[in-house]
Amino acid sequence: MPKISKKGQSMPQSPIRKLVPYAEKAYKQGKTVYYLNIGQPDIKTPQIAMDAVRVHSLDILAYTRSEGSEDYRKKIADYYKKKDINLTHDDIIVTTGGSEALLFAFGSIMDTDDEIIIPEPFYANYNGFSTASNVHIVPVISKIEDNFALPPISEFEKLITPKTKAILICNPGNPTGYLYSKEEIKQLASLVKKHDLFLIADEVYREFCYEGHTHCSIMQEAGIEEHAVMIDSVSKRYSMCGARIGCIVSKNKQVIQTALKFAQARLSPPTFAQIASEAALDTPQSYFDEVIEEYVERRDILMAELQKIDGVKVAKPNGAFYCIVELPIKNSDDFAQWLLEHFEVNGETVMVAPAAGFYSTPNVGLNQIRIAYVLKKESLIKAVNIIKQALKVYKD
Amino acid sequence: MPKISKKGQSMPQSPIRKLVPYAEKAYKQGKTVYYLNIGQPDIKTPQIAMDAVRVHSLDILAYTRSEGSEDYRKKIADYYKKKDINLTHDDIIVTTGGSEALLFAFGSIMDTDDEIIIPEPFYANYNGFSTASNVHIVPVISKIEDNFALPPISEFEKLITPKTKAILICNPGNPTGYLYSKEEIKQLASLVKKHDLFLIADEVYREFCYEGHTHCSIMQEAGIEEHAVMIDSVSKRYSMCGARIGCIVSKNKQVIQTALKFAQARLSPPTFAQIASEAALDTPQSYFDEVIEEYVERRDILMAELQKIDGVKVAKPNGAFYCIVELPIKNSDDFAQWLLEHFEVNGETVMVAPAAGFYSTPNVGLNQIRIAYVLKKESLIKAVNIIKQALKVYKD
Repeated sequence: MPKISKKGQSMPQSPIRKLVPYAEKAYKQGKTVYYLNIGQPDIKTPQIAMDAVRVHSLDILAYTRSEGSEDYRKKIADYYKKKDINLTHDDIIVTTGGSEALLFAFGSIMDTDDEIIIPEPFYANYNGFSTASNVHIVPVISKIEDNFALPPISEFEKLITPKTKAILICNPGNPTGYLYSKEEIKQLASLVKKHDLFLIADEVYREFCYEGHTHCSIMQEAGIEEHAVMIDSVSKRYSMCGARIGCIVSKNKQVIQTALKFAQARLSPPTFAQIASEAALDTPQSYFDEVIEEYVERRDILMAELQKIDGVKVAKPNGAFYCIVELPIKNSDDFAQWLLEHFEVNGETVMVAPAAGFYSTPNVGLNQIRIAYVLKKESLIKAVNIIKQALKVYKD
Repeated sequence: MPKISKKGQSMPQSPIRKLVPYAEKAYKQGKTVYYLNIGQPDIKTPQIAMDAVRVHSLDILAYTRSEGSEDYRKKIADYYKKKDINLTHDDIIVTTGGSEALLFAFGSIMDTDDEIIIPEPFYANYNGFSTASNVHIVPVISKIEDNFALPPISEFEKLITPKTKAILICNPGNPTGYLYSKEEIKQLASLVKKHDLFLIADEVYREFCYEGHTHCSIMQEAGIEEHAVMIDSVSKRYSMCGARIGCIVSKNKQVIQTALKFAQARLSPPTFAQIASEAALDTPQSYFDEVIEEYVERRDILMAELQKIDGVKVAKPNGAFYCIVELPIKNSDDFAQWLLEHFEVNGETVMVAPAAGFYSTPNVGLNQIRIAYVLKKESLIKAVNIIKQALKVYKD
């Protein structure tokens, strides 16, 4: 029997994948499961986007241009202008989700065994994209005590080698909810200029900034035009995860020309989803105002409920819809499985994401979980209460 | 300024990409351009597929499962059953086009610097996927004199090294239109068993087999269940290139489990396109009968017209909708550009794909072009006449 590749063997699994059978079993036993583990919002997609597809007038579902339709890219550039990000449609390549934008970025700037520095905890699929691209993640630890703020620049500098090609941040962060300050972005900008590195920023949660906090994009930072590569997506912004539309953005012409070659090889991004995504750009501000109000309420309730539990530590998120929670336990993998297998309150239990999968340093985050507050407030209250009750009886 | 990767630099461009500016110029000058260079059929997408999206009832455009929805995969398995390919939905992962299926296959079975043997001329984007995956294509030349039949197995065996992991065929072939016989598939099956290799077959043109010729899938071949990996797509079958839905199919559980990890990293294939693709499976046979009748007529007219030109050699295709044409010229890159820049018949000219881009051996196919017969018959006749007139005056 022919063998699969070493790369294939070392492709990581999602941190929650091994819990799925236990969740399915709990569901089959008739338990209600509150899914705090997922990044699929329960927020409705803007009507305008869904309707655009309903009234499509296509006879042939043809390829679009590899870089995405020009009309759509021009409208994206207009959207960025409103966010104080000045660029043209030529700086944008439409991708099949933010995922593909990351793969194009990795492929365009890194060769086999090159290194990319990422503050951890980080979005778990960065591990998969790195393995698929034959490159290595070099983690720099950010701490719950600091709310997961940017680690000191000296910590980054210690890790830079001739193989280092880029620094990657997620802003606001999944799984931390941390929103980088202007000052932190400036520090990173100096660093990448000094060491001639790329700075990749995954800004897919841009719209989700709370209590008057402003999002600072790397694309607003003067002097790093040739270094900055932004990753974006409609998935979270418009609750359109299933569209699979994102983009890679850079003023570095070589990066865009190179990413375009990867884009041409796979022909085009999905056509229906581009129709929906283009229409979504006309979503009124009131949609976002309501969504953000909802998330702020959810976050505040979540924080308040979590703080009622003895021994629990939580970093308050200023953006996105995740938080990392430290629990008075030894191993959150075991705890998460135990919750699904052996615990219930009135027939209800909870699925959480063990946080170790968001770190690449071994044995870090073992007592942490990630909570996505993508459920209604009543459900969040019930879910946190289940965790509270569980911690009273759980034994490591 | 930070540098792009060596991989990025060596990513190939599509063979027709450098002609595009000349085509745009010709168009702006008011010339009619017959596009014989593209694989975008002018055939209408089945109404049933387009309507399914029009009447969608989604409130939230959510992720589907990474491997594609279970309902859709079960219907795909039923479709294969009708084609005498017996498998279950567990052997199928839905991908974002055949392109992604190829990337998952390459990633699952090959590491950096591994080799894959491919009969050339081959689909040009195999070059891009190989570069993106850090693997090497080892070409084995098939000849226009043999209609591009499978090269002798001894030619493959000469090329096998410890780095060889797979053989890849496209059946029926793009750009050759060649349809492999049962005997040829059996020869390949023996070969991969003997040398413990994977056999990947890109069967996206399965439905396009002419004059009673039957398609022979590698999935029908007993004894190579652990070796066979099939690539498929709705793009050509239902004229749904813009859907970006394909699949990777194998009875080798390790391959599917590994490909699934790549699929999980990118979350899910596009949701609207899966709705359309699932509906497309109910397309009546009469649709294909009409389409195939149309393609046979186009092919026959194209062959007849080409054979009227002195010094032109053409391999008659039994499948797909391409053919390779040898012209009495030295360099088809120059000829194709000259056609767009300097030649016209009554204000009309032609865009063709120079064939060198479909070979990876240097300096082969320089006097060949690929023609896609995706235009109406009257246009094909006019287009071939333009080539005929052009050859009378063109000087290398």
